[in-house]
Amino acid sequence: MGRWEPNARERLLRAALELFVEQGYEATTVNEIAERAGLTKTTFFRHFPDKREVLFAGQEIHTRVLADAIAAAPDAATPLQAVTAALDALSATFTEDRREIGIRLRAVIAANSELQERAAFKGIRLATAMTDALHARGVPEPTASLAAELGVRAFDQGFGRWADPADRQPLTDVTRRAFDDLRAAVAALD
Amino acid sequence: MGRWEPNARERLLRAALELFVEQGYEATTVNEIAERAGLTKTTFFRHFPDKREVLFAGQEIHTRVLADAIAAAPDAATPLQAVTAALDALSATFTEDRREIGIRLRAVIAANSELQERAAFKGIRLATAMTDALHARGVPEPTASLAAELGVRAFDQGFGRWADPADRQPLTDVTRRAFDDLRAAVAALD
Repeated sequence: MGRWEPNARERLLRAALELFVEQGYEATTVNEIAERAGLTKTTFFRHFPDKREVLFAGQEIHTRVLADAIAAAPDAATPLQAVTAALDALSATFTEDRREIGIRLRAVIAANSELQERAAFKGIRLATAMTDALHARGVPEPTASLAAELGVRAFDQGFGRWADPADRQPLTDVTRRAFDDLRAAVAALD
Repeated sequence: MGRWEPNARERLLRAALELFVEQGYEATTVNEIAERAGLTKTTFFRHFPDKREVLFAGQEIHTRVLADAIAAAPDAATPLQAVTAALDALSATFTEDRREIGIRLRAVIAANSELQERAAFKGIRLATAMTDALHARGVPEPTASLAAELGVRAFDQGFGRWADPADRQPLTDVTRRAFDDLRAAVAALD
């Protein structure tokens, strides 16, 4: 009890994804996840409040990466250029060795409406983090929240393509392309 | 038991809002809401699964109003014109006598993060309904979902102003103005 388990969060995430894919999200218990990871239930609850949050553990770090990148963008960067920098920074954290996790995560979330709702809420949190960071640069409303919203949409689409087993392109590339497509569509709105 | 209670949904909504404002959302029970409305707990559960859903009972009808208005827009209407028609139709359902309810609803949701999460999810549902209706008109992605997103944002902002006790303008007007502002900001994005 209280012993530090190396890499416990990562082991719990991998165990949870395995079980969710094998037997479904609903049918899987915290006990089973801990057991598959070779850890105790107590260790599980030291890291996550419930099985759902295992899948959204990245939310805190992702919001920070986005906000920091926007804060660090050159003074002369436009709002959309600052968001591009943020998307690049976030995409860079999804290295090739994470793709298998991404594929499973995407499949598990797509199969469950509660998880889709939670994912949508994560999207709102990411957009809020970018909006706040743009405000801090002096970008007014509604420009800031629109730029942030486009960024989150681009990342969602990019991630969806990256986590498609048929695709083999880096996340940075597919996200940038999705962002360009959205910008073009916005410019053409009438 | 099983007896039809006239206007039960409306009575439960008004009772719930009164209690949430008086003593807080968390502290209020379904029993108290039913009692305040002069109804039984059984009647409550015939209409709502829990106290939270009382506040979001409009979701089904609102999605239908938006989708129907987009479907009914003239063939020549652009995506944003079709969304304008949808916003007008939805705004028209919030008559002046509903404003007091709107003010309370807004205050209760603003005070509770679970309710904010639920409200965000309702926004996603409204956007999805409009996106689907635009698809049915042949509007492609990402144009359809962007136009729908702008519409939901405009309605949120309009509702926020309408449900501000200091404001006395019709919801249709403030929502249209919010939509115009968003369109201008989108056009200026770079």
